[in-house]
Amino acid sequence: MVQSSSPMVVVANRLPFIVKKDENGVLVRKQCAGGLVTAVAPVVVETRGLWVGWPGLHKEDNLEYIPESSPDDKSPTAGLKSEQVIPVMLPRQLFDDYYNGCCNACFWPLFHSMPDRALFQSDKWQAYLTANKEFAARAVDAVKKIHAEQPDAVPLVWIHDYQLMCAANFIRNGCEAEGIQVKLAFFLHIPFPSWDMMRLFPWDDELLQNILGADSIGFHLEDYCFNFLDCCQRRLGCRTDRQKMLIKHNARLVTVHPLPISIPYERFQSLAQVAPAVVKNNPEEQILLGVDRLDYTKGLVHRIKAFERFLEKHPEQIEKVVFIQVAVPSRTDVKEYQELKEELDMEIGKLNGRFSTANWSPIRYIYGCISQEQLAAFYRDSSVALVAPLRDGMNLVAKEFVACQTKEPGVLVLSPFAGAGSSMAEALQVNPYETELYADTINRAITMPKEERELRMSLLKKREREKDVNYWLESFLESVNCDCKNTSGRLSPLREDDFSTFLENYVTESSRLALLLDYDGTLAPIAPHPDLAVIPPETKKVLMRLANMPDVKIAIISGRSLENVKQMVGIEGLTYAGNHGLKIKHPDGTMFVHPVPHEYEEKLAKLREMLKPVCTDGAWLEEKGTGVTFHYREVPNALEAEIISKAEECFDTAGIEAYHSHRALEARPPVPWNKGRAAIYILRTLFGVDWLSRISVIFAGDDRTDEDAMKALQGMAISFRVTASKNVKTVANHRLPSTDAVFTMLKWIEQRLGARSLEESKTLGRTNSVSKSPAGSPTRKSSRNGQAVEEMVTSMTMSDDDFNQMITVKSVVNGASLTA
Amino acid sequence: MVQSSSPMVVVANRLPFIVKKDENGVLVRKQCAGGLVTAVAPVVVETRGLWVGWPGLHKEDNLEYIPESSPDDKSPTAGLKSEQVIPVMLPRQLFDDYYNGCCNACFWPLFHSMPDRALFQSDKWQAYLTANKEFAARAVDAVKKIHAEQPDAVPLVWIHDYQLMCAANFIRNGCEAEGIQVKLAFFLHIPFPSWDMMRLFPWDDELLQNILGADSIGFHLEDYCFNFLDCCQRRLGCRTDRQKMLIKHNARLVTVHPLPISIPYERFQSLAQVAPAVVKNNPEEQILLGVDRLDYTKGLVHRIKAFERFLEKHPEQIEKVVFIQVAVPSRTDVKEYQELKEELDMEIGKLNGRFSTANWSPIRYIYGCISQEQLAAFYRDSSVALVAPLRDGMNLVAKEFVACQTKEPGVLVLSPFAGAGSSMAEALQVNPYETELYADTINRAITMPKEERELRMSLLKKREREKDVNYWLESFLESVNCDCKNTSGRLSPLREDDFSTFLENYVTESSRLALLLDYDGTLAPIAPHPDLAVIPPETKKVLMRLANMPDVKIAIISGRSLENVKQMVGIEGLTYAGNHGLKIKHPDGTMFVHPVPHEYEEKLAKLREMLKPVCTDGAWLEEKGTGVTFHYREVPNALEAEIISKAEECFDTAGIEAYHSHRALEARPPVPWNKGRAAIYILRTLFGVDWLSRISVIFAGDDRTDEDAMKALQGMAISFRVTASKNVKTVANHRLPSTDAVFTMLKWIEQRLGARSLEESKTLGRTNSVSKSPAGSPTRKSSRNGQAVEEMVTSMTMSDDDFNQMITVKSVVNGASLTA
Repeated sequence: MVQSSSPMVVVANRLPFIVKKDENGVLVRKQCAGGLVTAVAPVVVETRGLWVGWPGLHKEDNLEYIPESSPDDKSPTAGLKSEQVIPVMLPRQLFDDYYNGCCNACFWPLFHSMPDRALFQSDKWQAYLTANKEFAARAVDAVKKIHAEQPDAVPLVWIHDYQLMCAANFIRNGCEAEGIQVKLAFFLHIPFPSWDMMRLFPWDDELLQNILGADSIGFHLEDYCFNFLDCCQRRLGCRTDRQKMLIKHNARLVTVHPLPISIPYERFQSLAQVAPAVVKNNPEEQILLGVDRLDYTKGLVHRIKAFERFLEKHPEQIEKVVFIQVAVPSRTDVKEYQELKEELDMEIGKLNGRFSTANWSPIRYIYGCISQEQLAAFYRDSSVALVAPLRDGMNLVAKEFVACQTKEPGVLVLSPFAGAGSSMAEALQVNPYETELYADTINRAITMPKEERELRMSLLKKREREKDVNYWLESFLESVNCDCKNTSGRLSPLREDDFSTFLENYVTESSRLALLLDYDGTLAPIAPHPDLAVIPPETKKVLMRLANMPDVKIAIISGRSLENVKQMVGIEGLTYAGNHGLKIKHPDGTMFVHPVPHEYEEKLAKLREMLKPVCTDGAWLEEKGTGVTFHYREVPNALEAEIISKAEECFDTAGIEAYHSHRALEARPPVPWNKGRAAIYILRTLFGVDWLSRISVIFAGDDRTDEDAMKALQGMAISFRVTASKNVKTVANHRLPSTDAVFTMLKWIEQRLGARSLEESKTLGRTNSVSKSPAGSPTRKSSRNGQAVEEMVTSMTMSDDDFNQMITVKSVVNGASLTA
Repeated sequence: MVQSSSPMVVVANRLPFIVKKDENGVLVRKQCAGGLVTAVAPVVVETRGLWVGWPGLHKEDNLEYIPESSPDDKSPTAGLKSEQVIPVMLPRQLFDDYYNGCCNACFWPLFHSMPDRALFQSDKWQAYLTANKEFAARAVDAVKKIHAEQPDAVPLVWIHDYQLMCAANFIRNGCEAEGIQVKLAFFLHIPFPSWDMMRLFPWDDELLQNILGADSIGFHLEDYCFNFLDCCQRRLGCRTDRQKMLIKHNARLVTVHPLPISIPYERFQSLAQVAPAVVKNNPEEQILLGVDRLDYTKGLVHRIKAFERFLEKHPEQIEKVVFIQVAVPSRTDVKEYQELKEELDMEIGKLNGRFSTANWSPIRYIYGCISQEQLAAFYRDSSVALVAPLRDGMNLVAKEFVACQTKEPGVLVLSPFAGAGSSMAEALQVNPYETELYADTINRAITMPKEERELRMSLLKKREREKDVNYWLESFLESVNCDCKNTSGRLSPLREDDFSTFLENYVTESSRLALLLDYDGTLAPIAPHPDLAVIPPETKKVLMRLANMPDVKIAIISGRSLENVKQMVGIEGLTYAGNHGLKIKHPDGTMFVHPVPHEYEEKLAKLREMLKPVCTDGAWLEEKGTGVTFHYREVPNALEAEIISKAEECFDTAGIEAYHSHRALEARPPVPWNKGRAAIYILRTLFGVDWLSRISVIFAGDDRTDEDAMKALQGMAISFRVTASKNVKTVANHRLPSTDAVFTMLKWIEQRLGARSLEESKTLGRTNSVSKSPAGSPTRKSSRNGQAVEEMVTSMTMSDDDFNQMITVKSVVNGASLTA
């Protein structure tokens, strides 16, 4: 058995057995005989680990307990005591939405690169997330249980397959909250598609970030690994290393491994040695074999057509071969699968009708499950196995066939679109879409000289014997251990160099630049109290130097009040916007104040009064001029729920919507204005209506309210979302892990523009000719793109348009208050 | 107008106009108004070039002449005289198989990454090749015509789109045969899919090699270029340079260019300035617009669903917006398209039924063609254009909308899955599969503040105005010219380094190696007469040195007689196989002779006598022992057909099948034996039945008969096909352009193994302990893979198996002769 030092928690959609009632109404286990279970269950037993998964019953079924295995159970899961099993039970409808609606109707076809069959439904995706959260919660229970028994061990949590791609972060958060260290690994048993497919999934960035929640991620093939790296790079802007197969996401390093799964070779070989012979019509009859779950990825209809063509082209084989096709029923309640079965039934019926003779039928079609012994006999006694799926993560039938070839060597016909195709080189390759060549390949397999069969099969056997499922398991454990040893040294923090790749083409030495920055969490680290969120001195210094550059304009856009944010930053010559942009002050003193409905102000005054008595136990009120924020982050946990509910009641009574932000409730004026509109307003007033053709814009922020600005500027600026979170959806171009990274970016910009600015101020005296106040320099020459452009900078007084728009705003506001 | 110095021959599926009879039965032109035609036709006129394409009529229609344009024709093709147009007319059925069967039923969905919809049919693919050959033949006519008029010019042949991906090589061959130099360019107007899609196409290597027939290949996007490079590298084993976008295929260098197509911006803008206003229900009504060919790639049903969700979520917009969807009929005779139309009709009907009021319908659905003026009016007067295909090469509607935005600026909503999405960054992006976000985006577009609309639209307009269709055409011409100037210096011949990438992991310093080599065309260059095909002295020397290495065995497998090939190579210590392996002689003198049916020998004697009188005018007979070859390569062209037919008659009369090889007819014994079985036989006798686990095998050959060996050894050897041909299908791992490359490979092997061999012979005296004759060393130790393996080398006498097999062979032969 494979050795593992860490207690292993397996998290999989299914338990290694199903729980059901026997004829006496007693709960019993019913074994599932997969190779994965055979290999992994003993490790769970041995390391005193746990298995988390679905027992085949739903929440409504009220499962009372997990039965122990029966005394005569010889299966690999027999040693798994009931206390080592944690069942996950979901409400039936949720399970259906998650499993059928999302896993099978969306991920299955999409990951098999059949996008036309994929259904993208928001509610099913939500169900998937909910289900994954539930599996994760049970996995955290498992970790806690192990921690209680083996406090020094670092459990290895191993999450399996496409049903649980979003569990890792939930598990990580849960374990962190408990203060328990774990190793998190994920393995995908189906293909990982190319970026061209993955990008069709509307929630791809959320999905990718969730997969990245694991420390170590495994796929069958190198190709799948590269696909995953590509997706992370292209969708999330992650830094990746294709050589070492590393992904850097925010502050974390994730390793990726090609780990081709295999089968319990010895077990199949032993089965084949004892299984009774398959009955043939005559001793010379050659058997062609197909064994598949009845699924559209398997190419079953293509196979029947190829076999038909083979019989057409080689009538000499009539009565000399028989094609046994085992089709295991699957997802029989889904219409698509019912239709596929009908088509297959019809094609097989048609072919048999056409070629059958008095004593012979060309196809023996077995729709149902067969025993492992029967299967091994089929494998052993077949001359040819046809394993030609249209797309398949790995395909273990190919490997099982090889393991069972204990007598006369047969021939494996294999599709290059199965994962197995990339390592089993001695098989005959066939493209299932090419009927003619498929038929020729069947004939070649049927008539292959013995010495060639022997040769090919012996090498196939050798490889599969060596690289069996235990080898796979060992490789996996080794990869996890290597990661733990090596990764810490390999994670370099974001450096200035990285910004070269982000900004090189956008910010050139001759760029004019507008820098729009949020304050809290972007320039200043988040602190327990707003007064403590101070801008680091180094950041302040580089901002001051940038502010003194002739072609750089800086605006700070914050949710704080204008006066407050101006004081916190404390640099002259910047534009400041407070209250999410409702108040804007340019360095020359011109002001913009967005009108606020009078009604709202009355309501706000009322709210203030009502909230004051709720400010107990550490809760307090922040005054923001056009709004107030009720902070409860210092309230003890036990009291929190009660205080929040009281505060919410005040908002309700006052008739003001409560915005939830970082452990706070906010009152904001009900106006169609946000950081996005404020950003565009600032750019227009600083650079004129056609600012877009003349300047480069960089935006950075860390908050949901900053997404408004990123959205408004999308395609017109480069934006950065500051987030150390494992999973945040953003329209920003890039993610930064911390305020430190923002500082690094500012330094990069300074360096980029610095040399030029120095140069120019010396030789052209340019700093003199260009006033930093836009109002002071209505026209000037710019040399952007080598062309002299006459620039019109609008004065700070508002244009007619602005007034029009504000009147519109007002009337909408009034309209809203009338209907309210 | 764009300037081009070379006469341009455009080869496209369609002519820039359709020819049809008017009401008086007179042939007239009917214009096609695409942007491509507008831009390219004037260049053809100006350079005195030609346009080759389908005139809308078939061979059966007996087109008498190409009509001149009418005097009042103001279209861009008016200047194209009838003598500048070469019509391509195919039989109706062939055209249908080519155009509907292959182009639209296979390439269209496959290249749009919708593999489930693609039909792969061998006969349609053959029709495609035949049609491409016919287009190519007409293109060669065009080149000849230009050459006659402008003998010093080098015509630029520009092949367009997915209907003509296989024309380039046919055109190249045709022009070479005429001794006329041309430049060949190809441009694809649809996406080029990823390797993961392309590999599904069963004839992908033929297709890729045909595309590579052009000197310069253009795609819309860099992503498509990379996909193409990937495919050439992975399927054909081409050397590629991703930075410079170069592909080296055999002896040729091909350049790849991203050339995003655009529209005649000015024309659309002018149209918009004069087109009459679209009638609205009220002046404030906002128009949402969709304009699409009715195709499943366009996401029309998704759009209707998103609009429905938008109305659900925003009832305040009811009666305030109208959605005009123009659906242009397309491929209306195809069932899939009929079903799509039914679905769309139903969805629109349902939505209108649900939301319509007494005075208002939400969707105005126009199924049909509309005039350019009407289109421009729609574009201009719409507030929002919804351009959200599921997959689209470029999508020009997005660009036309922008060009026509001459009044109040509207908003473009664009799918990232359209090529246009990658450059039109200021559009609002929407994933058509995500109904919820789609609806929100529609709302954002409808309610976007004017300053943001202005901003986004102004930058979109600026880019499209600058990079219009003429810019595209200029870029194309520039790219072709650059290629001509620069490529010659950049093409390096295959070097020893290249073999490192081919063989490094397979042939290590400690490998034992079997080298199986064909003679003619592999070791010795092809010559007019077999006696003149001499092995170059340098090649002979390296072969001799390799033959002296202790762990290298060499076998020469040829179609020549054993005696002849042995004499031509003239090196002792090799294994020689003659008559495609029917006779094999090992260096220790042991012989294998495959039995030949007595009957055949009698027939052969008869054939010899019959062929002798046909050997006139340069034809002659080569005696090969178990066969004869009738050579006609020196027969004058005029007599060839007659002499071949006479010879074929002799074969027929004698009852022997004639194999066609390089300008020769061959008689071979009818036995199931070929170079493949001979190769495996040689390996077994030299190294024992388990040779595969102990040696590395390299095979090289240039002929169809060598493919038998490559096939038999597939997955068990590395094989090389020597071919300078533009398009050859092979199962070999790699292609080599010439016998020189084989020489380079032999040198690489010598270097790789040389150091070791020297070392060992000095320190271990190993050359002494290992006899070069397998019979002389029945057992010995090998250190492969660091493990000592006891090796059993079979003696040269045949095993029981071999006899069994030969008896089988004999009985089959006899059986065949009985039934013959």
